[in-house]
Amino acid sequence: MVMVADLAEDRLSTIRARFPLVVTTLDYLQLLHNEAIEAVVVATPVSTHARLVREALVAGKHVLVEKPITDSGATAEGLIELAAQSNRVLMVGHTFLFNPAVEVLRNLVHCGELGDIYYAHAQRLNLGLFQRDINVLWDLAPHDISILMHVLGAEPIAAGAHGAAYVQHGIEDVAYVNLAFPKRTSAAIHVSWLDPNKVRRITIVGSRKMAVYDDVQTLEKIRVYDRSVHAPPHTDGFGEFQLSYRYGSITIPHLPSAEPLRLEDEHFLECIRTGRVPLTDGRQGLQVVRVLEPAHASLSAGGALFPVPQQAAACSHSDGTAEMQLIPA
Amino acid sequence: MVMVADLAEDRLSTIRARFPLVVTTLDYLQLLHNEAIEAVVVATPVSTHARLVREALVAGKHVLVEKPITDSGATAEGLIELAAQSNRVLMVGHTFLFNPAVEVLRNLVHCGELGDIYYAHAQRLNLGLFQRDINVLWDLAPHDISILMHVLGAEPIAAGAHGAAYVQHGIEDVAYVNLAFPKRTSAAIHVSWLDPNKVRRITIVGSRKMAVYDDVQTLEKIRVYDRSVHAPPHTDGFGEFQLSYRYGSITIPHLPSAEPLRLEDEHFLECIRTGRVPLTDGRQGLQVVRVLEPAHASLSAGGALFPVPQQAAACSHSDGTAEMQLIPA
Amino acid sequence: MVMVADLAEDRLSTIRARFPLVVTTLDYLQLLHNEAIEAVVVATPVSTHARLVREALVAGKHVLVEKPITDSGATAEGLIELAAQSNRVLMVGHTFLFNPAVEVLRNLVHCGELGDIYYAHAQRLNLGLFQRDINVLWDLAPHDISILMHVLGAEPIAAGAHGAAYVQHGIEDVAYVNLAFPKRTSAAIHVSWLDPNKVRRITIVGSRKMAVYDDVQTLEKIRVYDRSVHAPPHTDGFGEFQLSYRYGSITIPHLPSAEPLRLEDEHFLECIRTGRVPLTDGRQGLQVVRVLEPAHASLSAGGALFPVPQQAAACSHSDGTAEMQLIPA
Amino acid sequence: MVMVADLAEDRLSTIRARFPLVVTTLDYLQLLHNEAIEAVVVATPVSTHARLVREALVAGKHVLVEKPITDSGATAEGLIELAAQSNRVLMVGHTFLFNPAVEVLRNLVHCGELGDIYYAHAQRLNLGLFQRDINVLWDLAPHDISILMHVLGAEPIAAGAHGAAYVQHGIEDVAYVNLAFPKRTSAAIHVSWLDPNKVRRITIVGSRKMAVYDDVQTLEKIRVYDRSVHAPPHTDGFGEFQLSYRYGSITIPHLPSAEPLRLEDEHFLECIRTGRVPLTDGRQGLQVVRVLEPAHASLSAGGALFPVPQQAAACSHSDGTAEMQLIPA
Repeated sequence: MVMVADLAEDRLSTIRARFPLVVTTLDYLQLLHNEAIEAVVVATPVSTHARLVREALVAGKHVLVEKPITDSGATAEGLIELAAQSNRVLMVGHTFLFNPAVEVLRNLVHCGELGDIYYAHAQRLNLGLFQRDINVLWDLAPHDISILMHVLGAEPIAAGAHGAAYVQHGIEDVAYVNLAFPKRTSAAIHVSWLDPNKVRRITIVGSRKMAVYDDVQTLEKIRVYDRSVHAPPHTDGFGEFQLSYRYGSITIPHLPSAEPLRLEDEHFLECIRTGRVPLTDGRQGLQVVRVLEPAHASLSAGGALFPVPQQAAACSHSDGTAEMQLIPA
Repeated sequence: MVMVADLAEDRLSTIRARFPLVVTTLDYLQLLHNEAIEAVVVATPVSTHARLVREALVAGKHVLVEKPITDSGATAEGLIELAAQSNRVLMVGHTFLFNPAVEVLRNLVHCGELGDIYYAHAQRLNLGLFQRDINVLWDLAPHDISILMHVLGAEPIAAGAHGAAYVQHGIEDVAYVNLAFPKRTSAAIHVSWLDPNKVRRITIVGSRKMAVYDDVQTLEKIRVYDRSVHAPPHTDGFGEFQLSYRYGSITIPHLPSAEPLRLEDEHFLECIRTGRVPLTDGRQGLQVVRVLEPAHASLSAGGALFPVPQQAAACSHSDGTAEMQLIPA
Repeated sequence: MVMVADLAEDRLSTIRARFPLVVTTLDYLQLLHNEAIEAVVVATPVSTHARLVREALVAGKHVLVEKPITDSGATAEGLIELAAQSNRVLMVGHTFLFNPAVEVLRNLVHCGELGDIYYAHAQRLNLGLFQRDINVLWDLAPHDISILMHVLGAEPIAAGAHGAAYVQHGIEDVAYVNLAFPKRTSAAIHVSWLDPNKVRRITIVGSRKMAVYDDVQTLEKIRVYDRSVHAPPHTDGFGEFQLSYRYGSITIPHLPSAEPLRLEDEHFLECIRTGRVPLTDGRQGLQVVRVLEPAHASLSAGGALFPVPQQAAACSHSDGTAEMQLIPA
Repeated sequence: MVMVADLAEDRLSTIRARFPLVVTTLDYLQLLHNEAIEAVVVATPVSTHARLVREALVAGKHVLVEKPITDSGATAEGLIELAAQSNRVLMVGHTFLFNPAVEVLRNLVHCGELGDIYYAHAQRLNLGLFQRDINVLWDLAPHDISILMHVLGAEPIAAGAHGAAYVQHGIEDVAYVNLAFPKRTSAAIHVSWLDPNKVRRITIVGSRKMAVYDDVQTLEKIRVYDRSVHAPPHTDGFGEFQLSYRYGSITIPHLPSAEPLRLEDEHFLECIRTGRVPLTDGRQGLQVVRVLEPAHASLSAGGALFPVPQQAAACSHSDGTAEMQLIPA
């Protein structure tokens, strides 16, 4: 039993033409009240996420909601609590965490191949698609924030941002985010709806090696650079010493061909069947929102860094088992 | 009569081997006191610029000094005044302004082909060469600041920056600069000594077209994208309206092959001969420092925007005649 | 009524799972004898094309057959005659002719923008997919031959080839084809199943401009180079004269986003409905085979050029109307 | 004592301006008769090589002559004999053999990392520079022939070519060369003065791995692809078997930065001092001509393969010691 609800009849008719066995409705309540349906996917404007997810959970459905989980940390917390009480799976569509390239990147960091992580910088640029209800920060930065938290295995402790709105009044279409992670690691994210090129690139600079993840590439998404610069161990920054630069080879690992969206959906189904906690569960979605909120506040405060509220037991679910399975030995 | 002064004898012997007619000395005063010498080029650590340029001007020499002109606006002002009083040419080595690609970029802006300029973003990244006396902001950002001021035909009214020092204690090797120009134009500059790739890219986004200048490319340095997004004229940001995206062709203009450093040197000689004001005169060099100073202050102030002091009659010398000559019709 | 016949039950079950309304059968005769079915698509090993297309035409079906139409010109001629007699549409799946990039390329040639066409060279390389019943010449070269004939608006008058079989005994996996067109235009095609990179590139060099079609690019498939070299008009090759090189800009036109396979299928349906002659009709498919046959013979004859048999009234159907519709004004 | 002879006074004056200690002359005999000069470099039109090299050897000079050594194998043999008799060094300017990237490629083949070498293909394309006295085959193909012989450690046993002359009557500006090496290895070379892009790429396909050498790249000149396709050991080409494709990582080795022309010149001087046989001695130069001659003959013979005359003890000097020194451990 598959049912699709939408407010637009033309979209529904397109779906029926393509998937003739799918039932469609203009009234989402028909979907929520249908007892044959166990799980729903919420892909609606962000401002409606909190209400629709709540209603779905109350109706006893498992829920996969598009990112960001909601437009505020407070409502996201409520949903997490509700899902826990009703023993339903609540998962957020941070699709990139199901991308094999991201998994390779994470392993490079976690196994220490890059050394200590100095900093990361990310660009997610494009011409369009302008959103009407959220700015570019809420639209595009969730991808990079979720990837960086997953890859670095840490959560930002402070966030700032500056940006500007050029095309739509009051809705930023360009933004630069500045994240402070523990252990002096920093990250910068540049998001834009207003750029001539499609860019989706994340660079991670470590003390031993560096890596670039370029998602626009079809095959060669990850490059590992065996390059670094070394300062002698005991220097005070004033004495005479020589830095040494190391330039080694570049490695482009072969990635398993996989469709992240399919892996995400299969993971959702598996979590429903087995009760496993999703890789991108409500708490992960909440933490992304907890970074977006101070970054958004910073936009109108001159770019100052604001603290990111910390979770009690952050990342306890990120035990690495789920993502390991994505990359066959 | 060509003379080279350096504190290191091995560098001098290398020069003698390559240019056997050049006279070398360990004592720069011999050079300054040599009456046969009319002009000197100062290419020394930034902290010594102010003193050496002053001594050269006092000795009656014309001076071409490497960028940035000095490490403070106050000393730069003194040099400009001294050069004016002694009727000597004072020019700063902002070499990129002699790059034909920059000239093409400037013409695209000035002739209105890009429309209103929304924003620019620049990246100047590399592994090395770490400096010891200045941070990456003072080392690399002068290039982008001078290019952007020249191309946009405007000077920043405020500057902020954040960054970090990973390899050398207290000397930032990564920095992000945020510039506010008049008419809501903004610019972001990312400079780094600590990146796996050599990147030298500037993107300029206008209301009609967009342009990318990639200096790492050998031949295809400039790309003009006939792309834009349009909002209907009278919208308040809340009403219902449709944005329209325009995707046209990309044009890669053919650039005259020219060596910027040679053009810069020829321009210096021409200014000496004709009394013409250099394209990159002391005031242009000063204005770059006036942007670097608040940006540097912002580095330790959480990235806040600080105002950039304005010149009385900014850019009056930038009449466009010099650069027009670079591009044959 | 849609029915799929295949010899492998597992493929059929995959189809049923994905398209639940499709009827499947292991016996293709059920499909041919089903009167509700008006048209069939033959996508089988090449050696079976002639027999299956014939049976389908005899059963009164319109036929779209994968390229190449058959493994010999003689059988292809028979099919064309049969289709004409039975008044059925016979179309060949030369999909690239429905690619907007190929249409742009053709217009560049036909409107004279490239000037006189000197020569073209094409590469279609990949690692795999090795075929068992045909060599790389019959597998990959039909794409380039059909594109070149369409773009140049001419048919080769002679063909030669050399190649080698490295992985499978007696089945060439690398081949180089040499085609002579009228008016001294020549073309070279390099096809390989044994290359580290996926390459799908065609370069066309004209007396006025040059163009490159790179099908591996997602967006920037066509580049037009405003470059040429000119010799003075009256030279005998021995006198003193100066060649002049012209280097102008590069233009990357925006291509409409279109799915060639969908356009091909829609064109097939339109031809059935309207009786229109397909852009890639049997005669076009036949002419590709007439080029493949001498090229194949040349493979074992030291690469010598063999003549290509000419059609009586070749290309009379290629009036350009079909393809013009692909590119909106 | 450095002296330059040229027929054009303006070229000589340019040299004097740049290198004031160099003596210039319009009469090359002054240079040959100057006893202070021990070695000469012949960089003149190919048709004059034989005469000038002979005169220089007779005058007792060591000679470095630009490629190709002469325009015929017969004259080249005479020069080699003369150099041996007069105990002078005769070296040919096959500069690419002093390119670190070529050395890496050679090591990949020689150490077996690529497995059995199936085939190579090369492209050397550009717009210009058209020669007047030789065609594109004699102008550009010597590079690829010398590289392939060096990298494969073998000499072609047969050569063929086809091409065309579009701009200058009777002087081919486009040519395709087909080389047969021992052990079924083959190579194809495409050279052109008439192409929109500068391409200098050589692909080598082995049974275990594949490598691409792209000389247009500044840093990433060599890519090693850990990819291959395997057939089961005992197949007759008719039975049922499955090919297996292996897709592994890509490695881009770091190359030492070196200027090939400088290495070539230093090697010439070292050979003069030590009596060592040059890496690119007369016999290596001769063998390149022995490949060019049948290829050239094939141009007007429909592309047929002609045998390449073999040397008695080919490549005995290629012991690998010279090139090993280019790549520091």
